[in-house]
Amino acid sequence: MNSLHEIQVPASQAQGVMDHINGDRLMQMLRQLASFGMRNDSGVSREALTPTELEARQWLCSLFTGSQYQWVIDDAANLLLRREGTCPELAPVMTGSHIDTQPVGGWLDGAYGVMAGLEVLHALDDAGIQTRRAIEVVAWTNEEGSRFSPGAMGSSAFSQPDRLIGFLEAQDNDGHRFESARDAALQVTPAAKKAALGHPVHAYIEAHIEQGPVMELGGYSLGVVSSIQGVRWYEVTVHGNSAHAGTTPLMARQDALLTAATMVSQLGAEAAARNDHALRLTVGRFEVSPGSINTVADRVTFSVDIRHPQESELIAMQDLLGSVLERNVGTCTHEVRLLMQRSPTLFDDHVLSVLSAAVVATGVPHCSLGSGAFHDAMYLADCCPAAMLFVPSIEGISHNAAENTHTADLVAGAKALAFALVTLAIT
Amino acid sequence: MNSLHEIQVPASQAQGVMDHINGDRLMQMLRQLASFGMRNDSGVSREALTPTELEARQWLCSLFTGSQYQWVIDDAANLLLRREGTCPELAPVMTGSHIDTQPVGGWLDGAYGVMAGLEVLHALDDAGIQTRRAIEVVAWTNEEGSRFSPGAMGSSAFSQPDRLIGFLEAQDNDGHRFESARDAALQVTPAAKKAALGHPVHAYIEAHIEQGPVMELGGYSLGVVSSIQGVRWYEVTVHGNSAHAGTTPLMARQDALLTAATMVSQLGAEAAARNDHALRLTVGRFEVSPGSINTVADRVTFSVDIRHPQESELIAMQDLLGSVLERNVGTCTHEVRLLMQRSPTLFDDHVLSVLSAAVVATGVPHCSLGSGAFHDAMYLADCCPAAMLFVPSIEGISHNAAENTHTADLVAGAKALAFALVTLAIT
Repeated sequence: MNSLHEIQVPASQAQGVMDHINGDRLMQMLRQLASFGMRNDSGVSREALTPTELEARQWLCSLFTGSQYQWVIDDAANLLLRREGTCPELAPVMTGSHIDTQPVGGWLDGAYGVMAGLEVLHALDDAGIQTRRAIEVVAWTNEEGSRFSPGAMGSSAFSQPDRLIGFLEAQDNDGHRFESARDAALQVTPAAKKAALGHPVHAYIEAHIEQGPVMELGGYSLGVVSSIQGVRWYEVTVHGNSAHAGTTPLMARQDALLTAATMVSQLGAEAAARNDHALRLTVGRFEVSPGSINTVADRVTFSVDIRHPQESELIAMQDLLGSVLERNVGTCTHEVRLLMQRSPTLFDDHVLSVLSAAVVATGVPHCSLGSGAFHDAMYLADCCPAAMLFVPSIEGISHNAAENTHTADLVAGAKALAFALVTLAIT
Repeated sequence: MNSLHEIQVPASQAQGVMDHINGDRLMQMLRQLASFGMRNDSGVSREALTPTELEARQWLCSLFTGSQYQWVIDDAANLLLRREGTCPELAPVMTGSHIDTQPVGGWLDGAYGVMAGLEVLHALDDAGIQTRRAIEVVAWTNEEGSRFSPGAMGSSAFSQPDRLIGFLEAQDNDGHRFESARDAALQVTPAAKKAALGHPVHAYIEAHIEQGPVMELGGYSLGVVSSIQGVRWYEVTVHGNSAHAGTTPLMARQDALLTAATMVSQLGAEAAARNDHALRLTVGRFEVSPGSINTVADRVTFSVDIRHPQESELIAMQDLLGSVLERNVGTCTHEVRLLMQRSPTLFDDHVLSVLSAAVVATGVPHCSLGSGAFHDAMYLADCCPAAMLFVPSIEGISHNAAENTHTADLVAGAKALAFALVTLAIT
């Protein structure tokens, strides 16, 4: 747990908005959004900038029409709803997440953060409260990265606009360019005001489902997310020699598959032996050439995904990876390529203090934890004070049709979000 | 080594034909056959019943036109050249192999056995020798099985004709049926006499390249093949649970890939620890679902190919497989399916004695060994006395453009084949 009550907040307004959070209205909005791409198994298929996702964007833009509201769309097709503050010249307080899903995703991943933000606006209206700073609710483009790679394009480009030019070239599996898909999104929301990418943000809070089992196992309804763990992705290629399975003695083989399997097995065993509950090590890809039942494999390529909240442990794990490969390569040869690395993201102390006060105000069991998954907040943290708020995932399930969260937790999350956003926007 | 000199052969005629083996003519025929499907890298692409292979069949049928020769084609498109004997009513002595190749194969696999057989006929003609029994040289259809599965269709159907009806339904990757391809083969060789599948055979000898490194390592030019090892093919499926690589603690995972890799690694280690030079254990396929870099795998399917010359060892290895899987399955589940099994083939003692005398007669270093690969002779052994003769493969390389054998060894093989076939055909 972070220490709580670190800051004195003018609690009356924040509490007032929190008390106007309407759970039924929140659930109704979540169900409406889920209807775009809903599957028979209750999963949602709404990949970034597909016709289904464009329909969901049009529905979004039909909400909150009124004098103090303005929908804005930027060059990355991030869709943003601004509720004006009494001091429009001040940097806004921002919240949000994404509305795109995995090819087969759940109804809450991303969607929850956007809908919870909109519910806070409803509650502000119901409470009749004007904030000094504008509050902005944003739906970042292509967080999942399943259709166009990389993920989190929208928030990444918002944080550093010169990244956009590279993203425009990205293609999906059918050869559609991200740029054309982005243009289609601009066209279907003509009422949204066009804006350049990026602007100063006073603070960013993203509400999200945990996507893991930690909170449920601990009995927590809310989690203040202090960090996003760092990650390193590697591609290991083992080169052997293809040979006839019937004629080649075991001793005369350079068996890329057996060698790679032993490397993976050892990596798993050594990672487990560290007894570090924060460590994640995953081999998710393992591709064999030629992949024939009666031919000794001449090449295997496998991935290694290592995550940890501490950079020093990522470095230690890279050393361990190197030594396990070296020790097991035998008569084969190998090469390792670092595909991606990102250092741990430490969220802003002040925003974390505000969030801690907010979860205390809800009166539900809460904890502080790190995020195992990436989120748009990771990129926002590069350009403004940021933090995240988690609600638990039932059985830790996510990226799956069965993804779900108890209604009471979803409502508690919206209340805490309201408390925190208002606290930040009135001070 | 088998004991030699077990039988007394009327060596003069056999020796006479052997002495008329013409190495230049043999190499010339081999190079001519290789020109059908020759690649820039010296590999040969001549899969079964493709237009290229049909051209090679037409070229074959243009050879040996004369009163004592007759080309015959049966319902499996096996192409057979009969050199009539003085007692046509006696069952013929048969030799041969196949002229189809892997998608990218070498120039000798199969081709050598057919061309060596034809060279024996040339030598018989040159020596002016008539044998009591007819000698038949056969090119079996679709030994490789790479275009139409299973392999060795021609010899399998010859051995047991009722198998043909099932083979006719086989389709290649482009949806072409084996039956149509077979019909095309029948049409392009109108001069070949049509014949029903299967007929009594006095003895069958197949000359072939070793396709492994054993003979070269031992310095042998010829090998008498006493057996073809038995084989069992298994498909192992490991079921886990897909989960987010970033959020799911190591202890909370059911990681199908890590589990399967550990199974494979242990299998390899335990197989090696048996120190049995005759044992072959190969995992050649390893397929992962979903195969995503940041998702814990929910399913892996891998193959296990186990071979040994003794059935009892195949059974012991099946037990070992079961115990390794059981011991390592952890929180995952698994199932095993036996895809195929074939007991060891023990070749005929008399034919082996004749072959042993033949390799002694050549005067080159020779050995007795088992075959690690399958061959048409495996099916012929089901219907007649059979055995095989190996020449070494340089560096053990086969199913590869680099496949090769020293000319002297190819010639020595043809000489031994001549000696053995004549011995069998005159007695």
